[in-house]
Amino acid sequence: MTAPSNTYDVIVVGAGISGLSAAKLLKASGLDPVVLEARDRVGGRTFTVQNKEAKWVDLGGAYIGPTQNRILRLAKEYGIKTYKVNEQENLVHYVNIPRDAPWRAPHAEEWDKMTMQELFEKLCWTRTARRFATLFVNLIVTAEPHEVSALWLLWYVKQCGGIMRICSTTNGGQERKFVGGSNQVSQCMARELGDRVKLQSPVYRIDQTGDMVVVETVDKQTYKAKYVIVATPPALNLKMHFNPELPPLRNQLINRVPMGSVIKCMVYYRENFWRKKGYCGSMVIEEEGAPIGFTLDDTKPDGTVPCIMGFILAHKCRKLSSLSKEERLRRICEIYSKVLGTDEALHPVHYEEKNWCEEEYSGGCYTAYFPPGILTQFGRVLREPVGKLYFAGTETATEWSGYMEGAVQAGERAAREVMCAMGKLQPNQIWQPEPENDEIRALPFVTTFWERNLPSVDGFLKFLGVSTFLSAAAAAGLVAYKKGIIPRS
Amino acid sequence: MTAPSNTYDVIVVGAGISGLSAAKLLKASGLDPVVLEARDRVGGRTFTVQNKEAKWVDLGGAYIGPTQNRILRLAKEYGIKTYKVNEQENLVHYVNIPRDAPWRAPHAEEWDKMTMQELFEKLCWTRTARRFATLFVNLIVTAEPHEVSALWLLWYVKQCGGIMRICSTTNGGQERKFVGGSNQVSQCMARELGDRVKLQSPVYRIDQTGDMVVVETVDKQTYKAKYVIVATPPALNLKMHFNPELPPLRNQLINRVPMGSVIKCMVYYRENFWRKKGYCGSMVIEEEGAPIGFTLDDTKPDGTVPCIMGFILAHKCRKLSSLSKEERLRRICEIYSKVLGTDEALHPVHYEEKNWCEEEYSGGCYTAYFPPGILTQFGRVLREPVGKLYFAGTETATEWSGYMEGAVQAGERAAREVMCAMGKLQPNQIWQPEPENDEIRALPFVTTFWERNLPSVDGFLKFLGVSTFLSAAAAAGLVAYKKGIIPRS
Repeated sequence: MTAPSNTYDVIVVGAGISGLSAAKLLKASGLDPVVLEARDRVGGRTFTVQNKEAKWVDLGGAYIGPTQNRILRLAKEYGIKTYKVNEQENLVHYVNIPRDAPWRAPHAEEWDKMTMQELFEKLCWTRTARRFATLFVNLIVTAEPHEVSALWLLWYVKQCGGIMRICSTTNGGQERKFVGGSNQVSQCMARELGDRVKLQSPVYRIDQTGDMVVVETVDKQTYKAKYVIVATPPALNLKMHFNPELPPLRNQLINRVPMGSVIKCMVYYRENFWRKKGYCGSMVIEEEGAPIGFTLDDTKPDGTVPCIMGFILAHKCRKLSSLSKEERLRRICEIYSKVLGTDEALHPVHYEEKNWCEEEYSGGCYTAYFPPGILTQFGRVLREPVGKLYFAGTETATEWSGYMEGAVQAGERAAREVMCAMGKLQPNQIWQPEPENDEIRALPFVTTFWERNLPSVDGFLKFLGVSTFLSAAAAAGLVAYKKGIIPRS
Repeated sequence: MTAPSNTYDVIVVGAGISGLSAAKLLKASGLDPVVLEARDRVGGRTFTVQNKEAKWVDLGGAYIGPTQNRILRLAKEYGIKTYKVNEQENLVHYVNIPRDAPWRAPHAEEWDKMTMQELFEKLCWTRTARRFATLFVNLIVTAEPHEVSALWLLWYVKQCGGIMRICSTTNGGQERKFVGGSNQVSQCMARELGDRVKLQSPVYRIDQTGDMVVVETVDKQTYKAKYVIVATPPALNLKMHFNPELPPLRNQLINRVPMGSVIKCMVYYRENFWRKKGYCGSMVIEEEGAPIGFTLDDTKPDGTVPCIMGFILAHKCRKLSSLSKEERLRRICEIYSKVLGTDEALHPVHYEEKNWCEEEYSGGCYTAYFPPGILTQFGRVLREPVGKLYFAGTETATEWSGYMEGAVQAGERAAREVMCAMGKLQPNQIWQPEPENDEIRALPFVTTFWERNLPSVDGFLKFLGVSTFLSAAAAAGLVAYKKGIIPRS
């Protein structure tokens, strides 16, 4: 029997940013939520480690930027400051895909049947451009171009505000980091929620056959509520046994949206030697033999704790997962030494890494990807409620899905869906725009001649959608080369 | 605390054919196994229903044929008879892919990066041939050509003995059915295992941090054993919470191998009117508007209970899942009427169907498919043990994977792996060939001129691997057309 104290208005599964922002909004609206978290910590795919060597380091989601107004609003509320990451790059993109329903885009079926690799191959390509495009896909979605649907990738870029916004440091998704680490956002929300957040409580069963939904956890607790918000990556719905079973499309969707593959690697040095050499610490490394594909300076805003953040992405992540931590560090330092042209890179003073592929309760990082054919067939049930179950998690967002911002959008939207089901809100209040942050503002990107002058009719959409992005990527590849940061064999 | 009676040598998760044949072999070898089954029945993806109208009907796996010697051996042991299905067709295929390690095939990486659709498009195609090839993929793996890796599909066909063996009724995978239904095999094994088979016992937790592996079920029982054999589709490993977590590659593999989409539809008629019209009941229906892609006569061997079995495959399955059962039946009868050219098809006397996409504990049917890029990156960990966990299930087989035969091969292999770990067998005894069934023998297929005369060198492998299969498929399409069973608009 369940004690009455285990009965709530809403059970939220998952204390990542999405689940916590759902619970926060519910509580603020006078409701009584509880959050059940599988791990012994909150934050999900954000994970800040504190220690002597690193002070604090984000081994998971870290970067934020303009147009990410929801996560910035939360940070501001809790007094969490941001600081600018030192780098820039510029790409251009425009494509006509509805953010909330990419399966209704023109050519949706055709593009969804293609992998991104196929779309690349359909165009005139130099080897340089193709290599850069592959790295671009690796970097933004931690998967290979041949693994992902072209439609999905184009949607993904679009809903982040385009190639320039997604790729840029200044004025883009990597402009800033949180002073003290991104996990603070979750920790502050969790603190506010107090003992409503239950750690080490993996949910294994959801029964909605009775009046109340009954939820059971591996630590043998039973919770009851009127509604449940599942705020996990879609694939992790599979961790739960449902009664009644999920409807056919959702039952198969959760089987079809794998999580990306990435190891985040932080190499610490005594000195910030790269800045002395005129490098900002950003590297775009295309060599197949290089473990790392992309780096950013991760030195603290006050200039202390010199550090380079690097990603081991997609197929390299799978290949290098079996190495020891020491061997990975050795190979990383070797490539940094080669790219930066100095032996100083061979002498790190500390190393932190996080292989997200080994996390049972994430399944991978940064986010879920859609293999070919899935978005048009199953996309529409991504956030479709099932009885009293509602779905949050950054994968269900329509702006910055895959990012911390998307997590907040999804969590708050799911909370409002529940409030709407309770009769406390109108359906037209579920989706709410977010005012722009008054400190971190988005600047327009300069558009290209082609973007301004091509008529936006059907026949040109494909050209607009693809070739400007690809030629821009090629151009960026060239720029990177000219800056001397891409080694050529 | 666990009662001592809940302690076994081996816990088998899943009472499908694979799990039961593992447990059967362990018990016969003097060991003490228990089988934990999530459902209230044994048989997994085989499912025989008995009722007045249908007598008995296989709503899941049903067909068997020559070279499937393990499942035939089990059937013979239990006195389960087979009967021949009335139909024929012929296709040819040859491709050099190692059955046990397709990731080591020549061109493995190249082919794995391509979807089957891409491989089709790389060749000269008539629309007729392409439509037939799509239906062929739909039919054998219940997925779309653009969803699956070309390497994986070629491997799948290869490990079934080639296109002719996989497609043929006479001398192929659909030659026979079991009199009384395929579920009898599982029921007989379960009867033999007695109260070692626990129904309604979904496993949600596997803890191998102690000396014994501890397994917990949703019905709140705890079992302990020296070893565990997980005999579920790979994706359903996700239903369990593991301590310690699975290694990174397995943790991600189980996220990347979705189950196919199929509804099996049995339409019963008062009379076997199609035979009177000179049709055997097999239909190959390529029309996009037709719900069903392929049919076989399912009339009982004694001529009673006239019935046509049809599959709603892949994207049609997802599209038609939302209809009512009655509406699906209506549309099916309409297309049968059109194809067979008679209104008699419009008047069924009974209907049975099974939508496998809605089954939480299968995830879909017939089997798991590999999207592009997964087989070469993750295939090698499919049956790699994790501590004291061993992996069975037809997906881990190297012969007739995806079929009942593969389930037996995998179950018995996993049982022998455990016995090897216990020191009761040598490593070279784990994989055992199966003698040919003395009643149901495989006949050689007539090979084509090209198969006999092309040199088997690298440059020709691709041609051999693909074009003979495709031209044969096209030829078969033409044959079907000439027989008048494919309606053309």
